[in-house]
Formats: sequence, structure tokens, C-alpha cells
Amino acid sequence: MRKLLFAAGALIAMPVIAEDQPARAPSEIVAATSKADWVAIASSDLLVMDLAPDAKGKQRRVVIQLMPAPFSQGWIGNIRKLAAARFWDGLSINRVQDNYVVQWGDADGEDKAKARKLPAGLVAVPESEYAISARAGPVNTLPKTVPAITRSNWSDIYVNHVEVTGPFRNQGWSGFSLGWPVAALSVNPRHGHEDSDTEVTGRKVAEVWPVHCYGMVGVGRGYSPDTGSGAELYVVIGHAPRHLDRNIALVGRVIEGIEHLSSLPRGTGTLGFYESAEERVPIVSIRAGSEVEGLPAYEYLSTESDSFAAYADARANRRDPFFIRPAGGADLCNIPVPVRRAK
Amino acid sequence: MRKLLFAAGALIAMPVIAEDQPARAPSEIVAATSKADWVAIASSDLLVMDLAPDAKGKQRRVVIQLMPAPFSQGWIGNIRKLAAARFWDGLSINRVQDNYVVQWGDADGEDKAKARKLPAGLVAVPESEYAISARAGPVNTLPKTVPAITRSNWSDIYVNHVEVTGPFRNQGWSGFSLGWPVAALSVNPRHGHEDSDTEVTGRKVAEVWPVHCYGMVGVGRGYSPDTGSGAELYVVIGHAPRHLDRNIALVGRVIEGIEHLSSLPRGTGTLGFYESAEERVPIVSIRAGSEVEGLPAYEYLSTESDSFAAYADARANRRDPFFIRPAGGADLCNIPVPVRRAK
Repeated sequence: MRKLLFAAGALIAMPVIAEDQPARAPSEIVAATSKADWVAIASSDLLVMDLAPDAKGKQRRVVIQLMPAPFSQGWIGNIRKLAAARFWDGLSINRVQDNYVVQWGDADGEDKAKARKLPAGLVAVPESEYAISARAGPVNTLPKTVPAITRSNWSDIYVNHVEVTGPFRNQGWSGFSLGWPVAALSVNPRHGHEDSDTEVTGRKVAEVWPVHCYGMVGVGRGYSPDTGSGAELYVVIGHAPRHLDRNIALVGRVIEGIEHLSSLPRGTGTLGFYESAEERVPIVSIRAGSEVEGLPAYEYLSTESDSFAAYADARANRRDPFFIRPAGGADLCNIPVPVRRAK
Repeated sequence: MRKLLFAAGALIAMPVIAEDQPARAPSEIVAATSKADWVAIASSDLLVMDLAPDAKGKQRRVVIQLMPAPFSQGWIGNIRKLAAARFWDGLSINRVQDNYVVQWGDADGEDKAKARKLPAGLVAVPESEYAISARAGPVNTLPKTVPAITRSNWSDIYVNHVEVTGPFRNQGWSGFSLGWPVAALSVNPRHGHEDSDTEVTGRKVAEVWPVHCYGMVGVGRGYSPDTGSGAELYVVIGHAPRHLDRNIALVGRVIEGIEHLSSLPRGTGTLGFYESAEERVPIVSIRAGSEVEGLPAYEYLSTESDSFAAYADARANRRDPFFIRPAGGADLCNIPVPVRRAK
């Protein structure tokens, strides 16, 4: 019964009664935003992956937005070099693990005789860069954005514990910064202790880091202290694996075409690796968006806009006609930042 | 580079050094459990869906475990009748929405002339059954299980708000009961007020309800007060849509073969519905497990066992060699209850 569906941010046509207008669905709030609420994404901050056509000859293009500074710039610099060197062209998607990740890179990378040579100039990025530390300075470059991550009514199981160490009281929270889902740890001095951390909305932010939501793109790595070069990338295609936060680098998110990855056959080997070369999905090319002719322009809804706040509130409290009981809160990863082709 | 992978509950071979043994991964803890920690699932509590073979002629079987009493039994009774009446045989999967759900039933259900007739004896279940209410009695049937849902160190954004109404103080939490992820609301009387709710670990449980994690199976419905008959079912194939909790009935979970659903091509119509009949995936049959010859026996790890507690702790604090920084907590839906073919 086609009417027996349930809505997920879908526009529901309802008779509008003036004195009892139904609350708007999140998608309706997004549709009603003004152009000024949207932020253009530079084509140079896009990564365009073209897979071999599917069995029916259909094109498969995946568009990735890379994170802005100050997040993960060491790995992102490597990724730009890898794309410029055409490193991934002719390589493949080698791993599809259900409810977890799709991963691509050099399937022969372990075999030194067969491995494709990495381009010159890649840097080794230290583990400290998994998060942005106030002590190292760069949180100071987020003066207008960090306040947006403070939603005291939305706690976050992955950072909401309070730790008291010495003269400090650490407290975690999460939200959005520069258009991205992030978590943060604040350090509140006890006994009037002061330090040099950035003061934001009465808290001193110690660390900010991006989080593993659906569609986020990260960097495969070996055992610590390896942090990965960026040659091996993965996309989250399941429930947010937040235990990976601060354990591995995040560099971007898929903004179009994720269905070409999430609907791939699952690998039957350990960790979802394909067991035969035939199963691997060939990558035709991965390019910076600025090198791709005819690529549409994209934009995201500013996470500092009132529209985003209204959208996030509606995601946390569904009052549109299908719902009978608003949740009163929402998981950070259940508030995906709207991204669209520019209008 | 094949070594550049990251572990998800995978067994990692590491040299074991006696004085510095690496912490066990969650999967290693599960592998080391004893038979006594596992609970057999009756074949009559399974639902077996056979899809038409895939393009390569490969069989596609999905095994679903139905929830035990006292959860959602009205809808589950209907589902047993629908399976016995072969209602779904020859119908199809009609909707695949990325990061959300796969849904099946009668694609012609809206067209009264074409709709398949429902079997006799289906009941209309009231919305009050989305949760188990202590006032109605059935929470009292969970005396040994409700304590297992109390993990005060794991808060839950979807229920962790505290509401004070009249002489009561409501507080939410979540955990596991009878092998299933659930959330609960407790009512703590203020000013020494007493009522007849079940007292559990010092709290008075008012309501318990199953939650929308990856792989959970629910009942499609129309607008309230419709709650769905059970003829239209969906499976979660993305980040847990917890905003649906207590808004729609959950009846089970996929315990084997979810990859046959999660890897289906996404529908391009509204809400991920397939736009043409050709795209729909034919259902050969859906049967109670007790009617399926040669079906393996299945069992789940008791959520009241010490093994489960150790497993959940390891999911929340990954100390196995790949991880450098344990999270200190875990989302309820990031602690999937282990289910296996019986050994």
C-alpha cells in the first residue's frame, strides 16, 4: 500500500487550514530558505570520483567535499597531490563492509613489487592532527564557528562524560562548525585557574574534531603511529562509527552519488574485502573538481544561519503530520547538513 | 595497501606478549564466550524471506527474528497470519531509500481494484502499544530484564532529558532487555509520592520501548491513528532513525542476509520508491521459520550475561591494538547484539 509509507524529511502535501497549520517538515524548512543562507563550495574543494559504468552502462559519479582549514589539512594536501598525480586512476574499490565502510586504493599496495608508486611530496601527518588543539593555536581561527557547536540540550554519548583532572574540569559536547559535524572538549578551570585557551561562550575550548557520520570520508591507516597518507580512503555507509573519532583522520564527505557506493555488493572476505579481482569496482579517475569540465556548483546551508537552527530543531522535534511524539533531541549524525546544487 | 585497513570487531592477529597482552577486541570476547551465554531462538520466531535470485542467479535469503513478548505482539500476531496466508508471495520490495529503509508489500495496495486481499483476522493495534506501559501491567513481565537496561554511564540523547511534571520526575535511559535494544522512561515520585509502577533498581519504570537501530524491522503505516497492519514492512539500512521510536511499531530485526537488502539499487522516486515495476525486487516467499525445511538454528548472546557486559564495555572502550583513544561510551545502536548460527 503505497500510502502506507513514513516520511523522512519528505514534503507531505496536506490541506492547509489557516488556524491550524501543520508544522513544517525539515525538508520544507530547507526549501523555504533564502539564497543568503547558503555558502558556495569552491570547485577546488571537491574531489570527483568516476567509477566504471554499472552493469547497465549507467555512469557512476561520486562527488566529495573536502574539509576546510583548520581541519585535517595535512592529509588533504596529500590527497590533492594524489589526485593531481592521477594516482587512483585505474585502481579500484576493494572493500565494502555492510553497515560500516566502502574503501578504495591500491589493491596491490601490500606487495612492494606490484604496488603503485606514491607521488613525491606526501607528508606524514602526526596523530595530534586528528583534533584541533587550542594549545597549538588553530582553534583561534574558529572564533565565529565554535559557538555554533554549543547545544547544551543535545548531549553526546561519545563526549558527554565529565573528567576532572587536576585544576581542570573537562566537558564534551558536539554540534556544527563551518558546515561540519564536530565534537569538542572544553576545559573549565577550577579554583579560578586561568590559561591561554580560547574562551568561547564562557567555556575554554581545548579541542575540536570532526566526527564519523554517514557519508564522511576518512583515511585508511596501519597501526599507530601510522596515520595514513591519504592514498587509501573510505566512506561511512552505515550507522555512525563514532568510536573512530580521534582515532583516524576525516577529510571530507560525499555530497552527491553516495548510492553508487552504498549499494555495491558487500565483500565476503575479512573486513568486507572483495576476495577476487573481478569483484573490485574499477575507478576511472579521481580529480579535483576544478579540473572537471561542466561540474555543477554546490553549496551548503550555513550552520550558523537561523534557517539551520530551525532545521536542526525540526529534526530533533518532528512535528510534521506523520509524527505523533517528537523525540525532544537528535543525534548529531541525524542532522545531516543540507548540501545542494547551487540555485 | 591491504594492510592499511581499520578494524571493526575484526580479529586482529597480534604477537601475544605475556606481560603486555593486548586487550581483546569485541569480536574476540564474543568468540571466547561459553555456550551457556547464548539463548536459542525458536524457529517459530523467525521469518524467512526468499527474494528472486540476483542477476548472477545467486540465492537471496533474509532471516528476521521477531520480537518476544511483551513487545509489539499485536502486529507480530498479524505478521504470523500474513505469512501463514502466503500474503507476500509474489509481491515485491518497492522502496529503497539511501541511509534509511528498504520496504516491501503490495505495490498495488493503494488501488482498491488491484490490491491483494488481506487475510481474515488481522487486528488493529492501538498506538499505546508502541511502548510497554507499566500502568497497563506488562512491564511487570520483565522483572529480570529491565535492570539490564540501566547503564547510568551511557546516556541517550533520545531519552536523556528530564521532565518534571506534577509530583513526578521523569528520566529516560536506554540499554538492553531480553536481547533487544530498548529505551525506557522512569518516573521517580517527588515528595515521597508512591504509585503502582514496577520498582526496578530504585527507579519506577513507566515505559519501555524498542528502538530503531540498523537492521531493525518495522511496520509501515498511514497517518495517525493508523498503526499499520503488518502487511507493509521495512528494514533500517542506515544511521539509526531514532526519531521514529514510539512513532511506529518495531517487530524484529534482520539476523542474516541484510546485505541482500542494503545493497539493492536505491529508488529514484519520492522517498526512494522504485519508479517502474521492472525495478521492484520480487519476493518469492515469506514463511515462518518453523515452516522452512533445513533452516539452521540461531542463538543470541544473552544481554544479561557477563560476556555481553564485557562485549558492550569493549565496544564503548576500544582498547584493541588498532585504537589509540577509547571513546568512553557507545551509542546503543553501536552495540549490536551478537546473533549466530547455533554451535
